[in-house]
Amino acid sequence: MTLKKNKVKLSSILKLIESKKKIKKNIFISNIKNIFLATIGDLTICNHDKYLKFLKKTKSSAVVIPNKYLNQVPKNCFPIISQNPDIDFIKISNFFYKDCVFDKISNDNLNLNILKKKSININFGNNFICEKNVKFGKNIFIGHNVIIKENCIIGNNVIIGCNVIISHSIIGNNVNIGDGSILGKKGFGFKIYKNTIHRVPHIGKVVLKDYVEIGSNCNIDRGSISNTIIGKSTFLDNQVHIAHNVEIGEYCIIAAQVGIAGSTRIGNNVIIGGQAGISGHLKIGNNVKIGGKSGVIKNIDDNKTVMGYPAMEFRDFIKKNMMK
Amino acid sequence: MTLKKNKVKLSSILKLIESKKKIKKNIFISNIKNIFLATIGDLTICNHDKYLKFLKKTKSSAVVIPNKYLNQVPKNCFPIISQNPDIDFIKISNFFYKDCVFDKISNDNLNLNILKKKSININFGNNFICEKNVKFGKNIFIGHNVIIKENCIIGNNVIIGCNVIISHSIIGNNVNIGDGSILGKKGFGFKIYKNTIHRVPHIGKVVLKDYVEIGSNCNIDRGSISNTIIGKSTFLDNQVHIAHNVEIGEYCIIAAQVGIAGSTRIGNNVIIGGQAGISGHLKIGNNVKIGGKSGVIKNIDDNKTVMGYPAMEFRDFIKKNMMK
Amino acid sequence: MTLKKNKVKLSSILKLIESKKKIKKNIFISNIKNIFLATIGDLTICNHDKYLKFLKKTKSSAVVIPNKYLNQVPKNCFPIISQNPDIDFIKISNFFYKDCVFDKISNDNLNLNILKKKSININFGNNFICEKNVKFGKNIFIGHNVIIKENCIIGNNVIIGCNVIISHSIIGNNVNIGDGSILGKKGFGFKIYKNTIHRVPHIGKVVLKDYVEIGSNCNIDRGSISNTIIGKSTFLDNQVHIAHNVEIGEYCIIAAQVGIAGSTRIGNNVIIGGQAGISGHLKIGNNVKIGGKSGVIKNIDDNKTVMGYPAMEFRDFIKKNMMK
Repeated sequence: MTLKKNKVKLSSILKLIESKKKIKKNIFISNIKNIFLATIGDLTICNHDKYLKFLKKTKSSAVVIPNKYLNQVPKNCFPIISQNPDIDFIKISNFFYKDCVFDKISNDNLNLNILKKKSININFGNNFICEKNVKFGKNIFIGHNVIIKENCIIGNNVIIGCNVIISHSIIGNNVNIGDGSILGKKGFGFKIYKNTIHRVPHIGKVVLKDYVEIGSNCNIDRGSISNTIIGKSTFLDNQVHIAHNVEIGEYCIIAAQVGIAGSTRIGNNVIIGGQAGISGHLKIGNNVKIGGKSGVIKNIDDNKTVMGYPAMEFRDFIKKNMMK
Repeated sequence: MTLKKNKVKLSSILKLIESKKKIKKNIFISNIKNIFLATIGDLTICNHDKYLKFLKKTKSSAVVIPNKYLNQVPKNCFPIISQNPDIDFIKISNFFYKDCVFDKISNDNLNLNILKKKSININFGNNFICEKNVKFGKNIFIGHNVIIKENCIIGNNVIIGCNVIISHSIIGNNVNIGDGSILGKKGFGFKIYKNTIHRVPHIGKVVLKDYVEIGSNCNIDRGSISNTIIGKSTFLDNQVHIAHNVEIGEYCIIAAQVGIAGSTRIGNNVIIGGQAGISGHLKIGNNVKIGGKSGVIKNIDDNKTVMGYPAMEFRDFIKKNMMK
Repeated sequence: MTLKKNKVKLSSILKLIESKKKIKKNIFISNIKNIFLATIGDLTICNHDKYLKFLKKTKSSAVVIPNKYLNQVPKNCFPIISQNPDIDFIKISNFFYKDCVFDKISNDNLNLNILKKKSININFGNNFICEKNVKFGKNIFIGHNVIIKENCIIGNNVIIGCNVIISHSIIGNNVNIGDGSILGKKGFGFKIYKNTIHRVPHIGKVVLKDYVEIGSNCNIDRGSISNTIIGKSTFLDNQVHIAHNVEIGEYCIIAAQVGIAGSTRIGNNVIIGGQAGISGHLKIGNNVKIGGKSGVIKNIDDNKTVMGYPAMEFRDFIKKNMMK
């Protein structure tokens, strides 16, 4: 996933999306980023009211927006008004990055004998396939049939189970990843426009901070323009699905078969019971407890305990379901 | 999975299931099919009221039925009245097909060098295991540790991830299959009779039409007597389970961790939210939207939006849950 | 997973957990077991009211308890009063067993040619990795890319699919295990104490009795101090998660995407619909039927049919949801 362009004139970008707006001064764009991260030289997108507060103070050089947000764009940011912000942003992303939808496999793998010699205490099982430019710390245990794709970074004291597939990932220290888990695949993102499906480009990474534990048969998708992040000392059980751009805080406990949809942000010390589901683009506070099998469809404030489908405060769940 | 018999006298089949009914004329059976597909020369089964409309106009040569459906059988179809239609149909299936419950592995694999030479632009990773009689189109990318079992057909421009297992499948053009997904295993079908579990034979296939996209760690089971079909341009996210005989239409979007039980048929342009479940033997119309985590236990008409467990019309879900 | 110690003085164990209690006579401990199984020479734990009836008649030589259970301990059992029974029991477990949290891989694998010669009708696919001291019965079919880790026992007439990983397991006769399933990983158990996460040691096994069938992409975790047990002729569909210490009876049918949390015990002839979830530490009776997508959060008596979230008697579910 390499950046194809470097300092592109904004006027060229506008042609790409058939914008007729004129630009008075020369603006150069070096990269695309999300609205939280974009700064001078970046082009970003704002496509939902909940991101307006970030739009108002963005330092990015340009932003793709629907017309209704025009008044919210700061003075130093060039507004690109679009009838279809998502589709236009996809077009621009594909211009900056190539191959940003599907990964091809590389047959250019590391020589394992050299890897073994160069590393301090690396152990791996049979049929370990490690593509080029992967970096390892010391004290690494890797199971059988593991695949690590190019450019991944693996910290110290990491245990990786069997049949694990890792791509586009940065793995911290003291991390454990269970058998059969898959990290770093593109997310399930696309926009339908004029009867055509446009896949959202995925250029983000999976970031597992220190002391994270991932169970077996989990899926953690890479971010689209930002990263998918699992915070320090957060533990996941088996068969958990974490969609693209999700950010989870520290010391969270996520039980089996939980699913978290795209771009949701979860605080610290959050406990999520088995089979719970959390919709996309939500914000879950710190110290929240979510009961097993809950279906969370709106934001949750700090320190709340919720349960149910749709999830409600725990005392309401008890009142509604347990009393007659 | 090969058809063992060819043109069998119906009288021999009746002996198999200890039927004492006499047949006046000679009827020959060449195959077994489901009630939707069976035609002259086929033997079929009708075991549920919801299939009665198909029974009434079947062109099949014979049908296994409970006594109560006798009046519904057309003149040219021989009724095989059974106290246990399912069990008798299993017996007959096992007579026509052998090994139709469990697949054994073949050690008779394709020579990959020859495959590479014969094919137009086929690329595959390490440890690719391809059994005999698999047919490939052009422009194929196959990841590491992939297994494709005998007699599968793979179209053009197909991308198959790592650790994928494909058996008994026909894959169209421009299809993408994510890491760790498993296609074509027998379904979870059996009947319990006199304290014995009889496994339903599986002789159907998995059919993925053109432009289908399958996420990671999905399961799509082969059909029992018909096929499991995913329609053109339908996309599945990660950890989706599609049971035997399910038929999904075109341009559907199915989010992560959805499960669809056996023999359910889903229309075109259907959107299914994450973790939703759909019971077996249902019919879901076109343009239906099913909210995340819904539990669908009855048919849904065209153009409806439903949510809840049990799933209800969306406005009822809002009324019931959101207003106080 | 080897027992490190043999006949340890109880006084040494008390020092381990900084207990200041004096022991008058010499008591020796040989092993740790759960409250159901512990007998003379064993040390056990009782940390919940629901296990009090077992505590009252335990034959174990010592038990870790909170102070409030002191009156319930039988005369011949030494009470170890603890402010944090779980944490102290973890400390003692780690003393008796080592490496009881994470498995390392062994590179000391069986020679497959010798295995083939020694066995009666064993068949395996490519890239079969079988660690030392695995025992096989006769008539074994093993797919491609299978991993069986040290000390497992596999019965007669067993079919194991492709990409299966088995560790710490005892597999009965006539068992079938679907593609991509993972048996015997440590469970998702830990206790948080003074801001540190203490992982619960896992020294138990997975036991599959005769005629068990496991679908594809399932996870069955090993027990912590007892075993995880699937009873005779119980069938699991795809993507089922069975947590540590779960015990399932005979002739149960468990549909796809079901999750059963730790230490729950399920009777015989139980049918569980797809996507249902069962909380931990529950007791589900015989002949229980649990509707698809139900969330079970309390014990269920024999012969009940339940559905809903939270699960209620089926007639109540109908009354609540279907009537207006």
